Amino acid sequence: MSNIREIAKKAGISIATVSRYLNDNGYVSEEARKKIQVVIEELNYTPNALARAMFTKNSKTIGLMIPNISNPFFNQMAAIIEDYAKNMGYTIFLCNTDDDKEKEKNYLEVLQSHRVAGIIASRSQCKEEYVNIDIPVIAFENHILDNIITISSDNYNGGKIAFEHLYQRGCRKILHIKGPQCFEATELRYTGFLDAAKAKNIKIDIVEFQSDFQVKMLEVDKKSIKNIRDYDGIFVFNDIAAATVMRFIKKSGIQIPQEVKIIGFDNSFIGELLYPSLTTISQPIEKLGTMIVQLLIKLINGEEVLIKDYIIETQLIERETTKVFKL
Amino acid sequence: MSNIREIAKKAGISIATVSRYLNDNGYVSEEARKKIQVVIEELNYTPNALARAMFTKNSKTIGLMIPNISNPFFNQMAAIIEDYAKNMGYTIFLCNTDDDKEKEKNYLEVLQSHRVAGIIASRSQCKEEYVNIDIPVIAFENHILDNIITISSDNYNGGKIAFEHLYQRGCRKILHIKGPQCFEATELRYTGFLDAAKAKNIKIDIVEFQSDFQVKMLEVDKKSIKNIRDYDGIFVFNDIAAATVMRFIKKSGIQIPQEVKIIGFDNSFIGELLYPSLTTISQPIEKLGTMIVQLLIKLINGEEVLIKDYIIETQLIERETTKVFKL
Repeated sequence: MSNIREIAKKAGISIATVSRYLNDNGYVSEEARKKIQVVIEELNYTPNALARAMFTKNSKTIGLMIPNISNPFFNQMAAIIEDYAKNMGYTIFLCNTDDDKEKEKNYLEVLQSHRVAGIIASRSQCKEEYVNIDIPVIAFENHILDNIITISSDNYNGGKIAFEHLYQRGCRKILHIKGPQCFEATELRYTGFLDAAKAKNIKIDIVEFQSDFQVKMLEVDKKSIKNIRDYDGIFVFNDIAAATVMRFIKKSGIQIPQEVKIIGFDNSFIGELLYPSLTTISQPIEKLGTMIVQLLIKLINGEEVLIKDYIIETQLIERETTKVFKL
Repeated sequence: MSNIREIAKKAGISIATVSRYLNDNGYVSEEARKKIQVVIEELNYTPNALARAMFTKNSKTIGLMIPNISNPFFNQMAAIIEDYAKNMGYTIFLCNTDDDKEKEKNYLEVLQSHRVAGIIASRSQCKEEYVNIDIPVIAFENHILDNIITISSDNYNGGKIAFEHLYQRGCRKILHIKGPQCFEATELRYTGFLDAAKAKNIKIDIVEFQSDFQVKMLEVDKKSIKNIRDYDGIFVFNDIAAATVMRFIKKSGIQIPQEVKIIGFDNSFIGELLYPSLTTISQPIEKLGTMIVQLLIKLINGEEVLIKDYIIETQLIERETTKVFKL
């Protein structure tokens, strides 16, 4: 197999010069250029990503840590990130962390050893583990360290919008099914929802799910919902959890939206598939995914990027689960 | 950053010896071993995957081509492959091909340039593009070349089981919604279903969807289903497509399973989430995922593996969409 050393030898030129030529990052004389081109054609050389990575320190790979690939929001986001990164010349290492600190820590080591050019850490469960990482990192949702950019939707305001919609639809006996405390995003949805309810003097009952959607959890979490008939409005922390709650409600013989109205969060595709279709708060997945990749590549290229929280607007998507029922 | 060259220099030992030591693949004298260990501790050396890959020709990475990460079957499978591969010391490059030949071809080049140790090609749309690939490949579902192992579920028999179940539940006016012709697996489901119907002298109406589930296709395919009220039994080529069809049926005011019974294929988590829950034919995702990785790693390690079709049994999973309705 041809490599840089072989090219240098055949062309009678130093390895450093061939490297500068191949990576287009420094002076190469016209004479050397011609010699290298002839040899490259002779050897039928295709640059090897590994070799290039060792010379340029840019492996053109990004480590993408996703907490739960089975959650439609995160698999839509992974597809968008993968697609956009590919157009930018980067390949994605997929790491499914299951919101597990040990798994994430282990992946951090693997990604470093593969010398990825950058890391996207979605809903990170780690903090100090990132202190000595000398690879650019972008955080999605959960904050990691002060010097790491965090991107997220406006979850607090999304929670407020969710309450105001249920209230405006006439709901007064309201349940919020919240996510685990270690999810910053769903904590903000919860706070926004409660603050908006307080402003209208409405008391909210709370049930906490212990994890993001997991196939094996389908039945477990629903046991925590007692007296489901007491409510006329329910806000669930994400769409896929809302789907499981909707099944539970329908199975109990309760009519949606006639007897109870439901609102989710994410605007992932699952909501459009359900019957009735799910009203939700939209996170702009496309915008989030491309912004994450753009900022990360800027960091990789050493461009100046403002280290701050980037917060993207959320909005109401009205569907059938909150329709006003006409007699 | 410490590297193999630095270790060799400090230890006063050849690079080849250090490489043999680090990769545990050849004789290293006890004396050399001790010297290397002292230097490694001094330098606080962690082996670099790129350097190791260049020395051992095993990058410990696997390229996973998935046709559609938003299909719950494929995202469950990706999670299982990623998890199992990680336990075997491999990291996964995720490639979402969208069942697009050009995208797949392009990814093949990217994966080669990254010198992945092996490739998993799910539902490949390519053939001759794999002729000159000197990296071990395992195909899932679609066959590629005679010298490439193909793993799949027993889709033909699954199709037969699907028909027999609908027939046994009393369905006689039956519709099959089939997948695109370029999906070998769903073509076999279709053939098995039709053969079983022929044996019982039942005529089957056919509608063909033009792609796997795509968010943007949610409404498009359903337009091809005319006269939905004519049927008392429907077999849909996969669970996620069945979910979209179920929404269409419920929206039309038709009762499932009282007026029409539905059966899907995959046993992906979506079926348990729906109301009524979806009867389906199970593909053993866990078994398929681990078997794919096991066989691929055997090929990577140069172990002998029989080149043939590996076909895993499918079975009926009865749920609510085919329940007998009691008056």
